[in-house]
Formats: sequence, C-alpha cells, structure tokens
Amino acid sequence: MVDIASRVYNHTWKIDPIVRSLIDTDFYKLLMCQSVHKGHPDTHVTFQLINRATHIPLAELVDEGELREQLDHIRTLSLARGESTWMRGNTFYGQRQMFRPEFMEWFEKLRLPPYHLERVGDQYELTFEGPWPEVMLWEIPALAVLTELRSRAVLRDMKRFELEVLYARAMTRLWEKAERLRALPGLKLADFGTRRRHSFLWQDWAVQAMVERLGDAFVGTSNCLIAKNRDLEAIGTNAHELPMVTAALAPDDAALARAPYDVLADWHEEHSGNLRIILPDTFGTKGFLDNAPDWLAGWTGIRVDSGDPVEGAELAIRWWESRGENPRDKMVIFSDGLDVDEIERLHGMFSGRVRVSFGWGTLLTNDFRGLAPDDALAPFSLVCKAVAAEGRPTVKLSDNPAKAMGPVDEVERYKRVFGVGEQVEREVVV
Amino acid sequence: MVDIASRVYNHTWKIDPIVRSLIDTDFYKLLMCQSVHKGHPDTHVTFQLINRATHIPLAELVDEGELREQLDHIRTLSLARGESTWMRGNTFYGQRQMFRPEFMEWFEKLRLPPYHLERVGDQYELTFEGPWPEVMLWEIPALAVLTELRSRAVLRDMKRFELEVLYARAMTRLWEKAERLRALPGLKLADFGTRRRHSFLWQDWAVQAMVERLGDAFVGTSNCLIAKNRDLEAIGTNAHELPMVTAALAPDDAALARAPYDVLADWHEEHSGNLRIILPDTFGTKGFLDNAPDWLAGWTGIRVDSGDPVEGAELAIRWWESRGENPRDKMVIFSDGLDVDEIERLHGMFSGRVRVSFGWGTLLTNDFRGLAPDDALAPFSLVCKAVAAEGRPTVKLSDNPAKAMGPVDEVERYKRVFGVGEQVEREVVV
Repeated sequence: MVDIASRVYNHTWKIDPIVRSLIDTDFYKLLMCQSVHKGHPDTHVTFQLINRATHIPLAELVDEGELREQLDHIRTLSLARGESTWMRGNTFYGQRQMFRPEFMEWFEKLRLPPYHLERVGDQYELTFEGPWPEVMLWEIPALAVLTELRSRAVLRDMKRFELEVLYARAMTRLWEKAERLRALPGLKLADFGTRRRHSFLWQDWAVQAMVERLGDAFVGTSNCLIAKNRDLEAIGTNAHELPMVTAALAPDDAALARAPYDVLADWHEEHSGNLRIILPDTFGTKGFLDNAPDWLAGWTGIRVDSGDPVEGAELAIRWWESRGENPRDKMVIFSDGLDVDEIERLHGMFSGRVRVSFGWGTLLTNDFRGLAPDDALAPFSLVCKAVAAEGRPTVKLSDNPAKAMGPVDEVERYKRVFGVGEQVEREVVV
Repeated sequence: MVDIASRVYNHTWKIDPIVRSLIDTDFYKLLMCQSVHKGHPDTHVTFQLINRATHIPLAELVDEGELREQLDHIRTLSLARGESTWMRGNTFYGQRQMFRPEFMEWFEKLRLPPYHLERVGDQYELTFEGPWPEVMLWEIPALAVLTELRSRAVLRDMKRFELEVLYARAMTRLWEKAERLRALPGLKLADFGTRRRHSFLWQDWAVQAMVERLGDAFVGTSNCLIAKNRDLEAIGTNAHELPMVTAALAPDDAALARAPYDVLADWHEEHSGNLRIILPDTFGTKGFLDNAPDWLAGWTGIRVDSGDPVEGAELAIRWWESRGENPRDKMVIFSDGLDVDEIERLHGMFSGRVRVSFGWGTLLTNDFRGLAPDDALAPFSLVCKAVAAEGRPTVKLSDNPAKAMGPVDEVERYKRVFGVGEQVEREVVV
C-alpha cells in the first residue's frame, strides 16, 4: 500500500532540517550556558568553525545555499513546551530542578543570534559573535549541520539499494563493536557523539543499539533531545570554553594563572557529586594538577580529553594519592578519539584502580570509514571554538600540540604562565 | 505519519502466506512439467519430504496447524493472468513460446493436489501422490514453506531492534560475498536458492543485491516469480526426477540401463542450445558418460551437482575430448553446496578450459549461519523427492553416497546395472 499522503508530505518540505530542536545539543552546553548566563551574561565572545582536516574541501562538498538554509532554520527554533517541561521537571544526575527558573525563562525566549558565513577558497569561514550565553549554543548545531550536510552530499549520489547496503554495513559494524564492549565487566560508557555524528537519525539509532546491547553499561547520551525522546540519562559536565574565555578576560599573568581554578570554584558552588569532574588539559594537565588547590582533589573525577590517555590517568592517580585521596573512589572519564580497541585497552588497564568511564564520540556516531567510494564518508576533525572574548584572543594548549589554538605569542605566554614544557604531538583522527 | 490503513490491513490477514503464486517455483520445474504433461500425464508418482538433517526436530520447531494453513493456501492458488501472460509471451533462453498453448491451458486450470501430513516423532511425514505433472509442482513450494516456517519460528522471539540488526548483518555478509565475486573476471552466476531460502522477501533481496553488484555476471534466477517481477532471466533446465521416475518405470535391467538416455533423447527433441545441459550424476557420472551415445556429447554442457566437483568437471572434460569435442566450447555448471570460497576456487581452476557457470543456492538465499542464538537460523538439508512411480520405488545414486536414496536392494541393482563401484562420501551441508 503506497502511503500517498506521507509521500506528498515528504516532498513538500522546503528543506529537510538537520537540527530541529534547541535541545538537540550536548547536555554540558546547557549546564555551562546556565552558569555563563548567571556569571557572564554580557561577555562578548566570538566562536569560529575550524576544520582541522584541511584536506577536506568543505566548501566544495557542501553547497553554501543549503548551509545557509540549515543555519537560518536553526535561528527560527525556540524551546518547545515539552522540551521546557523536560528541562524543568526532569532529574539530572539525581537532582531535581537542575535548571533554575530564571535561566529557563531566558532560555524559553531565546533565538540563536546571527551567523557570519563566507567562503574562503575551498573552506568556509563561519563565525558567531555576541553575548556568550547565546553564542555558545551555536557550537553543537553548527558542527552537526556541517557534518550532516557533508554526509548528505555524498549520499545524494547513491542509489536506493546502495543506501540500504551502506546502512546495513554501518549497523553491522556498530553492532559488532557493541558485542565486543559487552564483554567488558563493569563497563560504563556514554554517547558523546552529537557534534560529529553522521546524521541525527544515525546517532539516534546508535544510541538505541547501545541501549539494546550494553544495557546498564550504557549510562546515557550527551544529546538532550535523544535523552528526552528515549528516556535516557543526559550526560555531561563542562568543557574547555569556560577556562578559555575566563583566561582570555584575565587582565594580567597572575589572574591568568588563577583563571582555570576560579572557573571551577564557581562550578563547585553550583554543582556537586558526579557533576564535579575536572577537565584539566586546557592549559596542560600536569601544571594544572601540580598547582591545584586541595579542594579540587575532593572532586569526583577527571576527564582525560587529550594527550596520551594512559599518562593522563596515571598523572591523575598519582595526584590524588599525593593529596591523600583514594583513587579507587575517583572517576576517570576517557573521551578523546575512542574506539573499541582503545576502550578495551584503557578499561583493562584502569578498572579496579579507579572508577573508569568512557565518553565515546565520533567513532560511535560516525564510523562510516571505508563504506563509501573514496572513503567520502569518513569522519573528520571539525571543531567550533571560542576564539575571542571581549576582543581578546583565546588560547588552548591541551596535552596535544596538534589540538592547540591561539596566536603564537599568546600561546607562548600561556605556556610560560602555566609552566608547560615539551609536549608530544599525537595525530588527531576525529 | 502512521499509515493506519496499512497497519489495520496487515493485521487482518488470517495468515501471512509464504507462497503466493504458482510461479514462485524453479523454472526447471515448469520446463519439466511441460515435458511430463506431454509424455507421462497419467503416471502416478509419490513425492516425499526428506529431512536429511535429522538433528533438526522440524515438528518441534514448526507448528502443524501453521504448516497446514500454508499448504492449504497453496492449494487455493491458480495461475494469475499476468503470470500466464509472462509465461506465454516472454522469451526464455532466447526462444519465444517456450511453453506450448496446450500446456498453458492445462496449467491455467491447475490447482495442486492434496497432501498427506503426519507427525512422526519430532519430524513430519509429508507426501504428495497423484499424476506426475501435478504432484511434481509441490516440491519447491513445500520446501520453501517448511524452511520459511522454521525461520519464522525463530524470528518470532526476536525484538524489533534485534530483527533490524539481524538483517543488517545478513545483508552485510551477502554484500561482502558479492564484492568478492565481483573480482572474478568473466563470472557467470545464477540464483538457484528458491527451495531453501530464508524467506521469499530475503531471496528477492539477495537477487537484487546480485543484480546491483555483479551486473551482467549475474545471469538470472531460477525463481520464475522473481524473474518476472524483476525483469530477469529465468534459469534452469532439468533435474534428477526425470531419470529417476523413468528408471523406476523400466520393466527390466536393459530398459533401466537405457532410461537416463531415453529421457535426454526426449529433451533433445524438445529443446536446443543452452537448455541442452546434461545432469549426469543420477546413477553415477562416470558410467553415464562412458555409455552415453555420441549425440549427447554434442550437447551444450553438463551440470555438476554431487561428488567432488573438480573430479566431475575433469571427467566431463576428458569425456568431451574423447568424443572429439572441444571442451572450451562446452559449459560446466556447478550447483552443489556452493559458497564464495568454492566458487572462487572452481572459477580459478576451470575458467578458460570450459565455459564455467554457477548455480548458487542455499548459501546465497539462506546464509544466516551464526546470526541467531544457538545458530537456530542456520540452513539445513531438506529435500522433497519422487520416491515412487506406479508403486515402484525410485532410486538415486548420485556421486555422493550421502545423497543416495531408495531401498537397499534396488540401490544394489542400480549400482550393478550402471556399473557404479566405490564412491567417496562427502558431507552434505546444504
């Protein structure tokens, strides 16, 4: 039976919107947004798209008109009633009313601010400027739109049957990953793959596959819309943009040196328990931990997001021990470039020594490597970062110089202030 | 959009019929049926289901009521107008009007005769008795029904998501087989998998996958309904039942020894070109070829359906050479228990020496090995054979004693008459 109505309906869409909800974003964005909305509502920031994979000619692959349509569509979105109800009424990390009424009132009225798009050679310059709490919400949807438009550009040339086989193969691959992960005793794993997902529908499927196969070992998803629709835990705490912007605003070196701790002191006031996760690598993990105040050692855990993950976790363990804490009570969340081999390895090395957890991103939601001609669906490293605050450039050092960003002289200054020495460069795959 | 009408419609089916058309059968059945209808319209035969895989308790797995419903449904079928048009108007093997008007008139009026079903232990005894041209048409649908009912019994316990993953994995496996076959230069391959298919829809998908990936290397399908619906060549010539029934009717040893050649003499009158394919193994390939009349060496090719396929093909090559024929002009069709490894091996060994072709059956249309718990979807060896003609038992020797059938004393007599010595037993996988 041909469902004529559906068919006609599907063909009357002006566009097929990629992002259809303001909560189709990472949970930590909303948490951070609430903090920023309270503490820095008027700070003027600039976010910028950065394609680390310069060999991918994004502007050749993705039509500018389509990109504008998708971004314009996101600017028409506002928080839906059911979404607001979910944010106000749901329990996050065991806590009710995580989102305060004054934040929710602001968020319910919000529309995303304008974007600036320009083609430069075979790449796009895409920037967002304005008040920090508004602009920061562009990061995830902008990345999701570009990544999915690139997928669509490749898929457009494929026949119906090829598409069926493509997704069958991708499903098989993901299922086999889940089978392997299932064998890991005590595994805790969450989906962190919104920003670089193959598509929204695929992320949604990937999350369901994890729920089906991993059961309780799958603790939730960073994607709020999927968490809401599928009745899962929304997962996430905080990210580099908090220390980066705060550091950029610091008037002198002494304030700069304090900035990453000031940020976490605010977070300490706001949040407790499993939301107290240190992200130590913004300006180098080692210096950050060496100089950290003792109250930070009381936090629940640490997220290892760059550099050698084994070194990062060992550093954290030694640090906790040096501060009289028992690492067995502490959580280490690995979230950098994970795939099954690496998850197995890290799980094997650190289970029992700390509470291990994984934030699995791109290779959960976008592992289409080898599935299209010329590997045209392979994921690539696209980010959207705060590059300036009140006209001052931001800096990120990270534990991998390949992920560092900022003007050269500022990078040097930060390295001096934070005591960062030699670093080992590691390939950034995704 | 929920298509309420479709949903309601799907739930109002009394059963979900497995065989919905009299041409959902192998092409060679229709060709042979026409010959039998002309030459032996009143010969009384018995066909019987034989589960060679006695470890599969078919009667435990498949509900008797459901089996009866499916078989009863088949008895309600008659040739549809479009099906008749296709048979009458289509070109088969380059020839128009392959099916004669008097046969079509009979076939258009046909309903399949009654069946006899009894449960014996954990197996079914399923037999069909009556005029040969009617009874013979039960073989393929009976096998398809039992095989698919067994699939359904396993699938019934699976959740929607598991089913999605199951088929994704099966599709991926089949696609990877097609990828490998695609690399074989000059490959010629047809679907012979109707009788032991996982399901009708899956066979249909498998055929489409071959069309998509193999292009002209995929020469067609033995399934008439799929050939019609997908505009493909219907493939097939003749099978063991012709010599088996004819031999059973032979009044003495001399007539018995002549029977397999008499059958082919009739076929010679009826058909030419690529339909002149010898199936030599019914009573042992070697004796059959040694004693064959010269005109048979003029036939287009040979089908190797049991025993060591390399020996079978080498035997044919030597035979053609001994009769002054050039093997390079001859076709060898391999059709016994094939999968990709074996196809690659035989293609590599015989390409260039003969015109190689493959009739790929069960592991094309039912390779679900390892995809369900307890391997409950693995294919198994189920056949439906002519066991008696005019009250006399039939015999098949084959080139593999594991495939032999018939009463012991008759088997001995046939071995003596056809000069069959020692045979090597080979495992019958599918």
